[in-house]
Amino acid sequence: MIATGKNVTTVKEGDFVSAEMHVACGKCYQCRTGEAHICQHVKIIGVDANGAFAEYVKIPESNIWKIDPAIPADYASVLDPLGNAVHTVLAGEIAAKTVAVIGCGPIGLFCIAVARACGASEVFALEINEHRRKLAEKMKADHVLNPAKDNVYEYVMNATEGIGVDVILEMSGHPDAIRLGFKILRLGGRASLLGIPSKPMELNLADDIIFKGAIVQGINGRLMYKTWYQMNALLKAHKLDLDPVITDRMALTDFSKGMDRLRSGESSKILLYPNGMPKK
Amino acid sequence: MIATGKNVTTVKEGDFVSAEMHVACGKCYQCRTGEAHICQHVKIIGVDANGAFAEYVKIPESNIWKIDPAIPADYASVLDPLGNAVHTVLAGEIAAKTVAVIGCGPIGLFCIAVARACGASEVFALEINEHRRKLAEKMKADHVLNPAKDNVYEYVMNATEGIGVDVILEMSGHPDAIRLGFKILRLGGRASLLGIPSKPMELNLADDIIFKGAIVQGINGRLMYKTWYQMNALLKAHKLDLDPVITDRMALTDFSKGMDRLRSGESSKILLYPNGMPKK
Amino acid sequence: MIATGKNVTTVKEGDFVSAEMHVACGKCYQCRTGEAHICQHVKIIGVDANGAFAEYVKIPESNIWKIDPAIPADYASVLDPLGNAVHTVLAGEIAAKTVAVIGCGPIGLFCIAVARACGASEVFALEINEHRRKLAEKMKADHVLNPAKDNVYEYVMNATEGIGVDVILEMSGHPDAIRLGFKILRLGGRASLLGIPSKPMELNLADDIIFKGAIVQGINGRLMYKTWYQMNALLKAHKLDLDPVITDRMALTDFSKGMDRLRSGESSKILLYPNGMPKK
Amino acid sequence: MIATGKNVTTVKEGDFVSAEMHVACGKCYQCRTGEAHICQHVKIIGVDANGAFAEYVKIPESNIWKIDPAIPADYASVLDPLGNAVHTVLAGEIAAKTVAVIGCGPIGLFCIAVARACGASEVFALEINEHRRKLAEKMKADHVLNPAKDNVYEYVMNATEGIGVDVILEMSGHPDAIRLGFKILRLGGRASLLGIPSKPMELNLADDIIFKGAIVQGINGRLMYKTWYQMNALLKAHKLDLDPVITDRMALTDFSKGMDRLRSGESSKILLYPNGMPKK
Repeated sequence: MIATGKNVTTVKEGDFVSAEMHVACGKCYQCRTGEAHICQHVKIIGVDANGAFAEYVKIPESNIWKIDPAIPADYASVLDPLGNAVHTVLAGEIAAKTVAVIGCGPIGLFCIAVARACGASEVFALEINEHRRKLAEKMKADHVLNPAKDNVYEYVMNATEGIGVDVILEMSGHPDAIRLGFKILRLGGRASLLGIPSKPMELNLADDIIFKGAIVQGINGRLMYKTWYQMNALLKAHKLDLDPVITDRMALTDFSKGMDRLRSGESSKILLYPNGMPKK
Repeated sequence: MIATGKNVTTVKEGDFVSAEMHVACGKCYQCRTGEAHICQHVKIIGVDANGAFAEYVKIPESNIWKIDPAIPADYASVLDPLGNAVHTVLAGEIAAKTVAVIGCGPIGLFCIAVARACGASEVFALEINEHRRKLAEKMKADHVLNPAKDNVYEYVMNATEGIGVDVILEMSGHPDAIRLGFKILRLGGRASLLGIPSKPMELNLADDIIFKGAIVQGINGRLMYKTWYQMNALLKAHKLDLDPVITDRMALTDFSKGMDRLRSGESSKILLYPNGMPKK
Repeated sequence: MIATGKNVTTVKEGDFVSAEMHVACGKCYQCRTGEAHICQHVKIIGVDANGAFAEYVKIPESNIWKIDPAIPADYASVLDPLGNAVHTVLAGEIAAKTVAVIGCGPIGLFCIAVARACGASEVFALEINEHRRKLAEKMKADHVLNPAKDNVYEYVMNATEGIGVDVILEMSGHPDAIRLGFKILRLGGRASLLGIPSKPMELNLADDIIFKGAIVQGINGRLMYKTWYQMNALLKAHKLDLDPVITDRMALTDFSKGMDRLRSGESSKILLYPNGMPKK
Repeated sequence: MIATGKNVTTVKEGDFVSAEMHVACGKCYQCRTGEAHICQHVKIIGVDANGAFAEYVKIPESNIWKIDPAIPADYASVLDPLGNAVHTVLAGEIAAKTVAVIGCGPIGLFCIAVARACGASEVFALEINEHRRKLAEKMKADHVLNPAKDNVYEYVMNATEGIGVDVILEMSGHPDAIRLGFKILRLGGRASLLGIPSKPMELNLADDIIFKGAIVQGINGRLMYKTWYQMNALLKAHKLDLDPVITDRMALTDFSKGMDRLRSGESSKILLYPNGMPKK
């Protein structure tokens, strides 16, 4: 994206930028205490206002993020979902921990990269879609499992000396996957939930959270703007290889072709180029 | 209780003591990393072994806790459940926070005292039993509500400028109460769950935890032995008035009368004296 | 103070308000990651710009804090230093902890009140000035000691079973007091430093910090604006009695008389009334 | 090392093991609250008792650590100092942080490896000894500086956009190095101190800690036994390449030759083999 605007001092026309899509009010209790990502009056660009599948989009100055030249230009358009992954992985201790990533859509795949870069000792990726499991392997998950076929519980318990994983990162929003996640979580482990179940679901609070002494975190958006600084630091240091997640590249005018690809279940992140395909 | 035993060096016969009822293995991952309260092989005296409604009981030396002479002798027998309350209240920030205690059995009543002593700015007590609501008032909860009659949601939102409470301490284990608790919890708030639902229950993870950015903690037992030091410090400093919770006192021989009182729903903690009633 | 201003939406003329005196830039790394109180480009009103010993003062809207009607009007003008105390006390665990407040100027005296309100089990106040020691007693410190005469080390060790205090809150900035503070701090304790030594000083890092496994925190200003919400909650709930700290009240026109009183060492906080003394 | 002993159940003769060298009392406040590494009555094997430059050494069962077969056998004898590094690096957030390692003896060199493995975005290594600087390069520090020649302050400020580093890990114990460390630490940064100054030293508390809002941590030993689990997980996952630190290998009988090598300043960790040199 190319920034432009009057009365704006921190970016200038021609800067190569990305943007945080949560627009916070700046005045509520959450905004005033460092939790703007869960602002009471948040507006999400693309949900509460027209989004960025467009040549021009209006963004408040505070939400603009300049892209460091050391970061691959292709990554600029996936920073919002990458931020979800960074926020989720770093919401608690991750170094030297075993972690299960549940659901390997783009954010789940990003989680694999971030967890590995930040010292997770073993990453288990759970995913029923074959194409996504292949991507999870390309992202170098240590174990890639298919919950529709594999006995995930037994496998994880064997691999963790009967203890279970230290951390689950729930990206699927599927009730069965969520329940499975809690089963493989160790006593005192962390469950960070980002995937959104479509309706209320049954949960065994007694066995899965209370007796277990588990910590459950609802994860929403990205910390404004701590997550962006973290992302920037990891990308500049070349700690994250996101290439496998970008499965398709096309001109913005081929927008509807991109939507077809998404529906096929055989693509992950699709880059749209506003000025046509870049020359390599 | 009066300690006795061979090869024991930290207590001697005649000491006035209480005890932690979770016996941890000392060798599992949790025990070796400061989480003995969720030991993989825990044995609970009174659950996994005969309990302490008896003249004599066998307790490992490590689990014995000497009672400081500045602490009222009557409180010695309620330290295990008081410890549940201290552990729950102090599992996160409490000073200057609004807090809802859901369910006012003995542990819920203790939570009111501990939260107030540790700087909670407003305590809402929720309880359907009239006798327990009266005790909650005696414990000086700022607001005592009956979820069976009062519109708790509206009341709490009005009292908190539409924000909701910072912390819920769930002591009831009742599915409706748990769901109500999450409704009145503010964005980014803490839900500490100790009450045990009798079976799996429906929960709206999307609205009540994920979008909310809530932190949910499963609470089990007491920290071994940080909670005991905290309890000791608060009691020695006379920060906790627990008298209203002790509704009945009787000789150990009247044990079955005590059980009847409990079933009546009109008593809270009942003290049993092994050597007959003490002279005042 | 009475707010007034154009283009301002959150306060209106006639509102009774106080203000945060650190004006942060809003754009640096610290401001963008929840640490505006240590902004790289902070301007302090009264230090970097004319202060508030005046009938009118210019304050950015974000820094204005409306006073809740439940809070005593007299407390409105001491919120900035009270905020220092709240920030310091709540910078770590305080409930059920023993704490030494070193130096009993106004902020130290406020610390006593805040620590007690938030569940500190024993408060030791250290102060060489007799007038201030009397105020520390009025603030209900459990132990008031004179380091110029008392053997503070021995006294504290006796009172804490040889362990030392859990927390020191350093408000004096005096090298001897700081070194004494570290001596009475327990292994693994917290040292929160707010008092400013006038020049570099000698410290025994090996014994006092490293072998001890101590945590030392530099404390600056107040969290913007978490500390203000905490202060507001504690004051509305009548958890803090600050009356003893307000030793003098006079009309703003008697300003220089107030300065004399301060120099005498026999007053603590002096309230100046812009419209003359209020009628009781 | 080869374990042997009666009444011991968790290890058996012939097991390949390492050991924690701090022997904690198990009964003091620190031991009972998860801080055994700063036990009031700690005995250090090699300091308070004969050490392990011997064919046989007596170690309490609790302190024995079995070596996972996936871990290079050569690393078994450096786990105690590696644990110092793991404890120091993971004593706070490290992922996506810039970090300065001050002093590149063995523990400093290990810190480089651990910080990189756990997602530190840039590692600055400071060391005056040329041989150690070369090792720091082999450990893949991003920047290796010589404080005796380079303008470290200017260099670090340039490399961090004028902000300073997020974290300093102080391994040298040298007063000048410690003071330099605080200068390059950003506002709100973390200073973890493990190196031991030989005597009290001058520090500018006002500028370097208080106004800066810094967090200073005294680091002692290793968490018992959280650090050991972390180390085990990182080593099993092949996250740490420690080979460059092991500069010499010799038979235990050549012990005094090893001491000469250490004095030369041209070796780092030296492995002594009790049964003569292993065949490759």
